Amino acid sequence: MNEFIFPLRIYIEDTDYTGIVYHSNYLKFFERARSEWMLGLGLDLAWQREQEIYFVIRSATLEFLKPARMSDQLQVVSRVSCLKRVSVTFEQYLRLSQAPDTVLCTAEVKIACLDNTSRPTSLPQCKLHDIFMGEPA
Amino acid sequence: MNEFIFPLRIYIEDTDYTGIVYHSNYLKFFERARSEWMLGLGLDLAWQREQEIYFVIRSATLEFLKPARMSDQLQVVSRVSCLKRVSVTFEQYLRLSQAPDTVLCTAEVKIACLDNTSRPTSLPQCKLHDIFMGEPA
Amino acid sequence: MNEFIFPLRIYIEDTDYTGIVYHSNYLKFFERARSEWMLGLGLDLAWQREQEIYFVIRSATLEFLKPARMSDQLQVVSRVSCLKRVSVTFEQYLRLSQAPDTVLCTAEVKIACLDNTSRPTSLPQCKLHDIFMGEPA
Amino acid sequence: MNEFIFPLRIYIEDTDYTGIVYHSNYLKFFERARSEWMLGLGLDLAWQREQEIYFVIRSATLEFLKPARMSDQLQVVSRVSCLKRVSVTFEQYLRLSQAPDTVLCTAEVKIACLDNTSRPTSLPQCKLHDIFMGEPA
Repeated sequence: MNEFIFPLRIYIEDTDYTGIVYHSNYLKFFERARSEWMLGLGLDLAWQREQEIYFVIRSATLEFLKPARMSDQLQVVSRVSCLKRVSVTFEQYLRLSQAPDTVLCTAEVKIACLDNTSRPTSLPQCKLHDIFMGEPA
Repeated sequence: MNEFIFPLRIYIEDTDYTGIVYHSNYLKFFERARSEWMLGLGLDLAWQREQEIYFVIRSATLEFLKPARMSDQLQVVSRVSCLKRVSVTFEQYLRLSQAPDTVLCTAEVKIACLDNTSRPTSLPQCKLHDIFMGEPA
Repeated sequence: MNEFIFPLRIYIEDTDYTGIVYHSNYLKFFERARSEWMLGLGLDLAWQREQEIYFVIRSATLEFLKPARMSDQLQVVSRVSCLKRVSVTFEQYLRLSQAPDTVLCTAEVKIACLDNTSRPTSLPQCKLHDIFMGEPA
Repeated sequence: MNEFIFPLRIYIEDTDYTGIVYHSNYLKFFERARSEWMLGLGLDLAWQREQEIYFVIRSATLEFLKPARMSDQLQVVSRVSCLKRVSVTFEQYLRLSQAPDTVLCTAEVKIACLDNTSRPTSLPQCKLHDIFMGEPA
């Protein structure tokens, strides 16, 4: 299984008056992790422009299990759970760095690949395929 | 069916470099609508403290259908779709004010009612019950 | 003096774990007010594109006097304090709707007018001039 | 001069429809850097509670010089520029990691030390004093 692990710290900006992380911010954390993963694979904006494609988020499902708190050191764990011709689905979760069995939040995020006219188009052959197939990242 | 309609404008802060609204911000819009609805029903922080309860979000499912854009005037439409002893589920969607048939994003958000020790507790009898039962708001 | 008054509500997203509004969010509130004012004057994106100009924020100075809190109903009061050939400065403050003498935060925001090559260019004759000169908005 | 250097990446969440970083987000970046610095010095929440103090931001002045963009790798450079009995002022700037002479944004942020009754109180003797005096961090 190819996984990508992305570390992050909780700052004041992430919290709300109830003392814990505001729920919509988890979506940001998951996206930072996907962005960093794709940057590392060379699937950056320059590559997207060259391929004349771009990505849009189609759906997201979040389960909030335990709250993240101020100054927590966390990890987002991501994997590609489904790779179709015109979409890719990520399974991601957030855990405490110092207690990796403590999962705080899980997400399933489906992303579509569009061409320059905003129509679904084939995801180009790229390192995501290798990752999905279990080849070394 | 009791629905609550909440108007909002898209500002620069809501957009991202792709020119459309950043996906996590839709969760903020849905929460503003729920907060405003509950304030209007008297279910505010003072009431929650009096009842010795508070609310946490358990899960959220979002479908992103069409993008919202800079300066758009929108409406969040909300209803209570499920009212259990210790949780309430909202079905919400975002539409263009001037084209109410154009739905941009849908959400299902499940919220649990906790007591002061963070254990699930019964949602007190309140106006949400009337709304769910279809009584006039 | 031509002033523009913009109402806003504080939601959970605006607060942080200290129980009050997170400081960077005041900049968002001030910008919402400027955006809404300019939209009302017809100085929207279409107008900017027609004029082949766009605006960038050059500097901002904020004084945080009293905290805004969850569910507060507030007003942003804005005026043009300085109108130069290639820049405009706004003086803005945030007050409680129900206690207009209670100022929570003040800002001075300087905005430059750029052409399509990102060089400073003259702000076109527009309703901002009338507002600055004290003509009715 | 004791400086603290904090690295950060720009993600989609930080940008706006004009293609660059939204202005209020720079205040978040500066605060992340201050928070990380203070955590490293042991001036965390536990320390603040033990000292019966907390910090509030009194003022912030920002100059926006050049825009940060999607995927930029940046550094926040911070130093204590003024240390008074009941307040501390930070001078901070944001630069490109790979072109350290390219300063994107500067900030001066004044922070007050309050006691549990929200009155200004003396900042306890702590490592900030050593840093301000130029002692090794």
